[in-house]
Amino acid sequence: MQTSLGFVAPGYANVLALFESLLAEDSRYSAQLAAYHQGLPVVHLTGGPDMAADTLTGAYSCSKGVAAMVIALLVQDGVLELDRPVAYYWPDFAVHGKDRLLVREALSHQAGLPGVEGGFALEEFTTAGAAARLAAAAPAWEPGRQFGYHALTIGILMEELCRRTTGEALQDLYDRRIRKPQEVEFFLGLPEDQEPRYRDVLYDDAPNQPWVDPLSLEGLNSNAPVSTIMELPNIRSVRAAGMSAAGGVGSADGLARLYAAATTGVGGGEPFLTGGTIAAMTREQVWGLDRSSGLDNAFAVVFMKPHPSRNFGSHRAFGHEGANAALGFADPSYGLSFGYIPRRAEEGRTPGRAHRLAAEVRRSTAGLS
Amino acid sequence: MQTSLGFVAPGYANVLALFESLLAEDSRYSAQLAAYHQGLPVVHLTGGPDMAADTLTGAYSCSKGVAAMVIALLVQDGVLELDRPVAYYWPDFAVHGKDRLLVREALSHQAGLPGVEGGFALEEFTTAGAAARLAAAAPAWEPGRQFGYHALTIGILMEELCRRTTGEALQDLYDRRIRKPQEVEFFLGLPEDQEPRYRDVLYDDAPNQPWVDPLSLEGLNSNAPVSTIMELPNIRSVRAAGMSAAGGVGSADGLARLYAAATTGVGGGEPFLTGGTIAAMTREQVWGLDRSSGLDNAFAVVFMKPHPSRNFGSHRAFGHEGANAALGFADPSYGLSFGYIPRRAEEGRTPGRAHRLAAEVRRSTAGLS
Amino acid sequence: MQTSLGFVAPGYANVLALFESLLAEDSRYSAQLAAYHQGLPVVHLTGGPDMAADTLTGAYSCSKGVAAMVIALLVQDGVLELDRPVAYYWPDFAVHGKDRLLVREALSHQAGLPGVEGGFALEEFTTAGAAARLAAAAPAWEPGRQFGYHALTIGILMEELCRRTTGEALQDLYDRRIRKPQEVEFFLGLPEDQEPRYRDVLYDDAPNQPWVDPLSLEGLNSNAPVSTIMELPNIRSVRAAGMSAAGGVGSADGLARLYAAATTGVGGGEPFLTGGTIAAMTREQVWGLDRSSGLDNAFAVVFMKPHPSRNFGSHRAFGHEGANAALGFADPSYGLSFGYIPRRAEEGRTPGRAHRLAAEVRRSTAGLS
Repeated sequence: MQTSLGFVAPGYANVLALFESLLAEDSRYSAQLAAYHQGLPVVHLTGGPDMAADTLTGAYSCSKGVAAMVIALLVQDGVLELDRPVAYYWPDFAVHGKDRLLVREALSHQAGLPGVEGGFALEEFTTAGAAARLAAAAPAWEPGRQFGYHALTIGILMEELCRRTTGEALQDLYDRRIRKPQEVEFFLGLPEDQEPRYRDVLYDDAPNQPWVDPLSLEGLNSNAPVSTIMELPNIRSVRAAGMSAAGGVGSADGLARLYAAATTGVGGGEPFLTGGTIAAMTREQVWGLDRSSGLDNAFAVVFMKPHPSRNFGSHRAFGHEGANAALGFADPSYGLSFGYIPRRAEEGRTPGRAHRLAAEVRRSTAGLS
Repeated sequence: MQTSLGFVAPGYANVLALFESLLAEDSRYSAQLAAYHQGLPVVHLTGGPDMAADTLTGAYSCSKGVAAMVIALLVQDGVLELDRPVAYYWPDFAVHGKDRLLVREALSHQAGLPGVEGGFALEEFTTAGAAARLAAAAPAWEPGRQFGYHALTIGILMEELCRRTTGEALQDLYDRRIRKPQEVEFFLGLPEDQEPRYRDVLYDDAPNQPWVDPLSLEGLNSNAPVSTIMELPNIRSVRAAGMSAAGGVGSADGLARLYAAATTGVGGGEPFLTGGTIAAMTREQVWGLDRSSGLDNAFAVVFMKPHPSRNFGSHRAFGHEGANAALGFADPSYGLSFGYIPRRAEEGRTPGRAHRLAAEVRRSTAGLS
Repeated sequence: MQTSLGFVAPGYANVLALFESLLAEDSRYSAQLAAYHQGLPVVHLTGGPDMAADTLTGAYSCSKGVAAMVIALLVQDGVLELDRPVAYYWPDFAVHGKDRLLVREALSHQAGLPGVEGGFALEEFTTAGAAARLAAAAPAWEPGRQFGYHALTIGILMEELCRRTTGEALQDLYDRRIRKPQEVEFFLGLPEDQEPRYRDVLYDDAPNQPWVDPLSLEGLNSNAPVSTIMELPNIRSVRAAGMSAAGGVGSADGLARLYAAATTGVGGGEPFLTGGTIAAMTREQVWGLDRSSGLDNAFAVVFMKPHPSRNFGSHRAFGHEGANAALGFADPSYGLSFGYIPRRAEEGRTPGRAHRLAAEVRRSTAGLS
């Protein structure tokens, strides 16, 4: 008895079986799962009591991978060069020893700017004012010598680099050149008319959490004086502004279709990124212990890369996970793209449902040939 | 019912409540806790059956933070420059590839000199003879390329640099310029007349410990052929000599007052370190896996810095913990200084009592403004 | 009642007692244990239902330490220089940014070549064809900037460097210059006439293992499309070819005698390596998180070095463990060499039986003097 809705293409029966078994194990579990192979949808499933096929919900840092597609276009267009200093485009950035930090370093979490003292107001995140505060800040470590996840500020860096090189907001450029022409159901800035489809991310409030010092690296990184990360997409103004770091909302199909459109094209169309752009954007820049979390991590330019404790794809895969354990990625080794969004936030780091589903999708694809 | 003795200033009731709850949980628990805010004592507590307000006991590697205050004075005076090679001051050091190692590298555990084969006799530690043996040694790794905690030898390095640049013993300089004028109850070299106040550190002997190879990095680091680290302060001759690495004894108030005197001044006096000296001494030099322990660690010049698994303060905090889980630090973000000494050694690394108390002190201070 | 067979020299009674206690704890446990001190056998034990004194069985990556003895001879002879680029000897290697990678870097797992897409056929491993595929490959990371265990391909690198510098197969050179003259019972290429002594490595098949993506770093590293590492020595053609990475078979005495012959000489003979060669080959090249496993690791040129989570000897020790928890090493601090091979594969990484036995052997030796 299939309890999920949707379809899987021939050869993907094991993906359906795994998804069904996850639903059977946990009556509160609801999720969307999607995959494209060589530009055609091969998995499109929705299951559980709290999710419909047309539901849009938060995907947190999966947004970074979406915004990175805009950065990739700027690189492809030649308006942004990864090996130039950030300060070449953004002169105010050249203070406190940040003058020589390269774009590819800043966009792989090496800037040492996890946050600012006092935090950013939520309405401030996508503004040039936030960028100005960040540019003026002293780095928490010697720029380019270490890396540590910039949970929120990497979005500010991406947005300002877009603004400086094109004069256009990253969100607008995304809408104009990617979301609308590629018909992607993932939004950096959810339009009013899509609001009825939005469903809040569900999450269990952890009682008695230890205090996070707002002036610690962890507190700066999570913007602790102002907000908690989990609430972000559930705030209308945040998802309306569509902050690149964590404000995107959409569907699993939206994520999978976006990565397909970028790498294989969808429905017979050309991919919007060339092989050269993909190579430049997805080469691993940093790997090792992350100064922010103390755990191992791996990043290309913005995109996450697979590594032993976050092993979502082949060595050519790139993508991004979200704080609710959502996951979007492309795996050029398999001609695959993948999107997964649970309605209720899961523990994201451990090899959970997203990784098991991603492995089954790749395994099924490998079995096709 | 308050079972501890002492006081907390208005706004610090939660600190008292936490300390009381720790005492209530464990009838064998005894400790001193102290904090200063902008130079004024705001927490001064003693609790448990085995601790009095005037007790002095061992604080192990908290001593390193104390001795580092002397190094800071030497830097401030201009007699020791962090960016000069150690060998500039200490020519015998320039063997086995150690000629270019900088003072700031050697004092952030990058020298590769965790110990010497055969170990140091306990009476040898504070002597020029120990320094000569260390200077002659081949490093265990390429100096300046890795770091690994020098549990005992960093004291020898500090002491010899003091001797070479001033002709005076570090312990004497500490007494003359810091301890006596600032009235700090923390001793590098406990005078005979203070002996009646000393109480042995209590610790549970772990039976059936695995053998530590005295010629392994761990064995060299812990001076395994000669002693075990836990016994050090309980030996009269060790605490009389006051080895900088682990021989200091004092009270929690002594630690808190020292860090206050250095950073904010106490009782309206000027701090004995300038902002520039503090910045130079407390900038993180190394972070990552520690070659000695295999665990993550972070060091400024001598001082420990907060990091994800030892998160005692804001990103500006600096201090040192001891093997018994004692902790002393300053946190300039809050104008705070902190001292904590348990009578019975606790597991030091995990976010234990010291970290919970330190968080509550900062949280209370943050709530004041 | 001694249930093991063999002998221990005076002073090594605790080693026998530990070995007996391990046998008593687990009725399925069978193993050989051997140690030499200053070239004389001091421990030679066999125990358990599935092991005889003359049994030969697989030792997996202990083979790397054996093959490294050939590399050491080439270095000693001056035909291979560790500080030259690999491409100096092997011009085809100089593609995809690998032109400047040094021999000592490539042989300490820094090449970024954990495997090739599609994998190597088992009969291909020891051939020039495998080397050609590897030379043509793009590295998985920037060569020389990270390290990650090359579980199988480091053998190809060693073999091709031997072929290029001497025109002789590494296995043949090993036989001619080391195994036969030193009478070492460890084979890189088990001769037909020794086959009757071979006993399969026993191992418990783990059911329901997660799928390993053959195109992930882990899959490339384990040659996942073709084989599983555990089966390798049990395949006659693999142990006949004697792949340097994992195809060696022998006895515990073979491993111990080899390391003794190299470092102290056996039975009064000269060691076949000079102190200078040993120093060059066994200096730690890399330490930290291993890109392949995400765990900490330490390597000299080919040889494993002790580190906090694999603490088999003094800081001068060098050797290699195998996937079945076999272990061979020399410890020049003690004039010791050590060999251990269990018949049934054990969990290798944790401080298991091999490390406990190795510690007891060193401790006993330390007690002699």
